[in-house]
Amino acid sequence: MSSSAAITRVSLPNHVRGGFVKLADFKIEQVAPPSKDQLADNQVILRPIYYSIDPYQRGRIAGVKGSFIESYSEGNAITNILVATVVASASADYQEGDVVIDNDGKWETEYVTEACAISKAPTQYSAEPKDHVGVLGMAAFSAYVGATVLAKPKAGETILVSSASGGVGQMVVQLAKARGLRVIGVAGSDDKVEYVKSIGADVAFNYKTCGNYLEAIKVAAPEGIDIWFDNVGGEFLDAALAHINTHARIIICGAITQYNLSSPDERYGIKCLTSVLIKKASIHGFIIDEYYDTPTHVAFYEEVSQLYRAGKITYRLSETDGLESAPQAFLDLFTGKNFGRSIVKV
Amino acid sequence: MSSSAAITRVSLPNHVRGGFVKLADFKIEQVAPPSKDQLADNQVILRPIYYSIDPYQRGRIAGVKGSFIESYSEGNAITNILVATVVASASADYQEGDVVIDNDGKWETEYVTEACAISKAPTQYSAEPKDHVGVLGMAAFSAYVGATVLAKPKAGETILVSSASGGVGQMVVQLAKARGLRVIGVAGSDDKVEYVKSIGADVAFNYKTCGNYLEAIKVAAPEGIDIWFDNVGGEFLDAALAHINTHARIIICGAITQYNLSSPDERYGIKCLTSVLIKKASIHGFIIDEYYDTPTHVAFYEEVSQLYRAGKITYRLSETDGLESAPQAFLDLFTGKNFGRSIVKV
Repeated sequence: MSSSAAITRVSLPNHVRGGFVKLADFKIEQVAPPSKDQLADNQVILRPIYYSIDPYQRGRIAGVKGSFIESYSEGNAITNILVATVVASASADYQEGDVVIDNDGKWETEYVTEACAISKAPTQYSAEPKDHVGVLGMAAFSAYVGATVLAKPKAGETILVSSASGGVGQMVVQLAKARGLRVIGVAGSDDKVEYVKSIGADVAFNYKTCGNYLEAIKVAAPEGIDIWFDNVGGEFLDAALAHINTHARIIICGAITQYNLSSPDERYGIKCLTSVLIKKASIHGFIIDEYYDTPTHVAFYEEVSQLYRAGKITYRLSETDGLESAPQAFLDLFTGKNFGRSIVKV
Repeated sequence: MSSSAAITRVSLPNHVRGGFVKLADFKIEQVAPPSKDQLADNQVILRPIYYSIDPYQRGRIAGVKGSFIESYSEGNAITNILVATVVASASADYQEGDVVIDNDGKWETEYVTEACAISKAPTQYSAEPKDHVGVLGMAAFSAYVGATVLAKPKAGETILVSSASGGVGQMVVQLAKARGLRVIGVAGSDDKVEYVKSIGADVAFNYKTCGNYLEAIKVAAPEGIDIWFDNVGGEFLDAALAHINTHARIIICGAITQYNLSSPDERYGIKCLTSVLIKKASIHGFIIDEYYDTPTHVAFYEEVSQLYRAGKITYRLSETDGLESAPQAFLDLFTGKNFGRSIVKV
């Protein structure tokens, strides 16, 4: 199946330490395809079907040592989670046509990898390939771990979630509603706010037009916040900290406002951290990779696939076509142009 | 036993919202003593032996509503934990001469209270009355809950503790050493640093003379910090956050640098909170009152009293005489003049 036509490859010539990444920071090129003949034992050739586009990749592009995840190597292809078809196999575990998930898959339209680095897409959840970068993908699973495992939600509590129409946020909204919480969603456009309400949020508001954050949060949550699920960091995080209840749990899933600063000096200074003391609260940072292939992962697949099949939850994707569109799709994450979880279809 | 001589009373005429409290903010007066004849059923008259002087009282003096603990009422006596002798009783549960603990005892040299508001000082731990505001008191118990329950320490890990010679810090140092941790203590004078080393800290330094906090922490903990037990907040907290390891636990027990600001605008802005995300860390605020009379409290009494009787831990007190000295002892907490846990003996 491996074709002799050139394939597309998106790489990062140089790390981009600070500031916003630009299209010119990516290199898009046509290169020779891998050949079946060059496969060593236990290698496979993959042809991606869906690429996942995620804010956390900004950290890998920065090339900072000692972060939670390896930086991209300069000159090499960008990598991230993707769903692919096996087009050639020198592994007894995989055969041509298998649909697999590669958590560190290459931004190339065909590439060679080790069989031990991939896994078969689970088939027992009536899932389509797209679902593995969508409703059952990493962002949705992050929502599950943060909002249901770490946050220990109790029916009747109030949860506030930022980026509430995004890949993580929209699942937080729906899982929290399914557990009987009062849900307040924050998003960056009126369209997104409407969507957040349509999937069950009791209250939603546009942070770009709401005026003073603290006032907006007070109006939305006069009873205070029991769970604060944060994807944005910075000033909004600070305002929410000022409005937490006793024993609040704060889940730090992302900090997108802090990813593109020109220098560390520009980081927003959080002034309300003493709320955590006064309110006997806790803050939990987490990275989803530690939860893969655990009982928590199975519980997620079971609950969410069941709710999805039953039509009780929805999951909006922001889909573009062709690997060439991946760099722009990535840049759009930081200007809010995406609406829903960003993926690229090939 | 109730005497007819006047008693001393220390009260707070007006809340002091911001800035440092001054001696003139307290009112010290002689008032008529309570009379045995006026006792209602189930009331007792107490004569305090040891008063406890604590930084957290600053919050109660501020008169801010909605904090974790009730503000002091203007015009009334200051209250705080104390150890007292029962000098008269109209309760079947107490008799003259009983030594009791009153968690909300009055800064009066004799006063009436309800029997249900006090408890007998436990006698099964070979404790002296002083121990109940000392080695077995609230600050030591806070150290136990934070450093051993919430922080989940593992032998070989590194713990950093601020205010390491204080009522909480000195117990954190010793409990952490007893669990096989590498202990780094920070204090505010060379004498205090020597004391912190003498009770077992592997490294200790003076934050007032160490220069750049981040560099000082890096030198002290080249392997990074697994547990950060914070009593100070502000700039030092921020520097420590920049040096935490993966899965670090941060215990917020106090924030003494942030208690006397003139306005909330002066609060230090924490810039390294994203470390909690990147390092998959957690932050735990707690208030000790929730742990009284729990199995954790019993475990604390048993472990610490045993270590203390065996001469394996020490506990330094900063003791002054006479209730009249309590206001100055309180002010001294914020200038670092105290050395060890502050108490007032009558």
